[in-house]
Amino acid sequence: MTTKQLTLYTARICPYAQRTEIALAEAKAKFTRYEIDLQNKPEWYAPKVNPASKVPAIAYGGPEVPPDQPSPESVKLNESLVLVEFIADLYPESGILPKDPVLRAKARLFIDAVSTKYSPAAFKATHSGDGDPEAFVQALESLQALLPPKGFVVGEFSIADIAIAPFLARLEVTLSNDLGPWPANSGEGQKLLKTLQQPKLARLWEYSKEVQSRPSFIATFDKDVIIKGAERRFKAFREQKYGA
Amino acid sequence: MTTKQLTLYTARICPYAQRTEIALAEAKAKFTRYEIDLQNKPEWYAPKVNPASKVPAIAYGGPEVPPDQPSPESVKLNESLVLVEFIADLYPESGILPKDPVLRAKARLFIDAVSTKYSPAAFKATHSGDGDPEAFVQALESLQALLPPKGFVVGEFSIADIAIAPFLARLEVTLSNDLGPWPANSGEGQKLLKTLQQPKLARLWEYSKEVQSRPSFIATFDKDVIIKGAERRFKAFREQKYGA
Repeated sequence: MTTKQLTLYTARICPYAQRTEIALAEAKAKFTRYEIDLQNKPEWYAPKVNPASKVPAIAYGGPEVPPDQPSPESVKLNESLVLVEFIADLYPESGILPKDPVLRAKARLFIDAVSTKYSPAAFKATHSGDGDPEAFVQALESLQALLPPKGFVVGEFSIADIAIAPFLARLEVTLSNDLGPWPANSGEGQKLLKTLQQPKLARLWEYSKEVQSRPSFIATFDKDVIIKGAERRFKAFREQKYGA
Repeated sequence: MTTKQLTLYTARICPYAQRTEIALAEAKAKFTRYEIDLQNKPEWYAPKVNPASKVPAIAYGGPEVPPDQPSPESVKLNESLVLVEFIADLYPESGILPKDPVLRAKARLFIDAVSTKYSPAAFKATHSGDGDPEAFVQALESLQALLPPKGFVVGEFSIADIAIAPFLARLEVTLSNDLGPWPANSGEGQKLLKTLQQPKLARLWEYSKEVQSRPSFIATFDKDVIIKGAERRFKAFREQKYGA
């Protein structure tokens, strides 16, 4: 398929945005990458690219223009999972969408579990601070139950692995650096990580390591940016909640 | 594509299940339909078909067996949106998944709005009883904003229309019969319907009429079953909440 110009509006820190970057890397796609500073979004971004003002977003087609001067003639798309399927549709040779309808359905069932089971439990436990570690362990168990004994979710690396990899990686990085909605230097992060990495979840963490060693993952993951971003976020949270 | 045996576990009352029935009707698929009584589920259903014990679910492939004796050799799939994409993948000639990646993405963005905007607002306003009519109007406006001036979501009838049609139809039927989490004979249902059908939402209701006149919709919609089911559900709700 002949593809048109593709501009990705993204941010290194954002796991949703990394999904689209992994998909584009797997597709070996030619595209223009534009980093959005989420702390200080350009004023043209919401009106001209994504009214929801979130990353990732794609401007597809239209004339070749500088990314900070988006053309009204390009199609604007958003929502990371929609974009990953879009990239898979544009680049079928990427192989990230299995050809077999049954495997596609299994990949999408896994993604559904990421959205409906993993994400709410992870958000509560690691961001809002009203989470229950046991509920998070159960969410991870339900993901693990969908993994085969070895390898990626549906055999070959696919949209399913793309959906979860950025989240598991950020979880490990932030918790091992004790970054979360708890008092600074309390060790709560490492303690939670240890709870999550208990022996009954060994398969999930082996899988996590495998997806994180995928070249498309490595090329789109910036640990330092993630640590700095989490430090900034939880510094503000801690000042408000614990006065320190 | 040569397809294998397909058994659909479904229930006339359920909007999620109707999505899969519309998709199969559009595909003119040969399949075995098995009605699950949601008030009295067969004991084999959860262990042998869907551990979540919900409809719809599909058993695909394996030997030809009676649907109430599911074979361990068939693949079991669930989640209505995953199943609709599965049916679209099995039957590309159905046309319910556009060929153009941009149109596919637009269909999926609409579906995302159904799941994340429409459903929560509708559930609160018409089931749990803690809804705000104005929030529901706003959710409907955000759906309407994604519709073209005329016709279906992406031109031809697609997975996007399939995702919303069963919900809009049930909304009209239950509210016009005053069925909901309010006292019996209070007229609250008709009043809410009037609020929702205000002039600024005219395009959405014109669209609703159009999707409901699609033959695949008509063939899979049973108004009487839906009214009887809602009567039973809200009778119980009203007895508990209002003592009548």
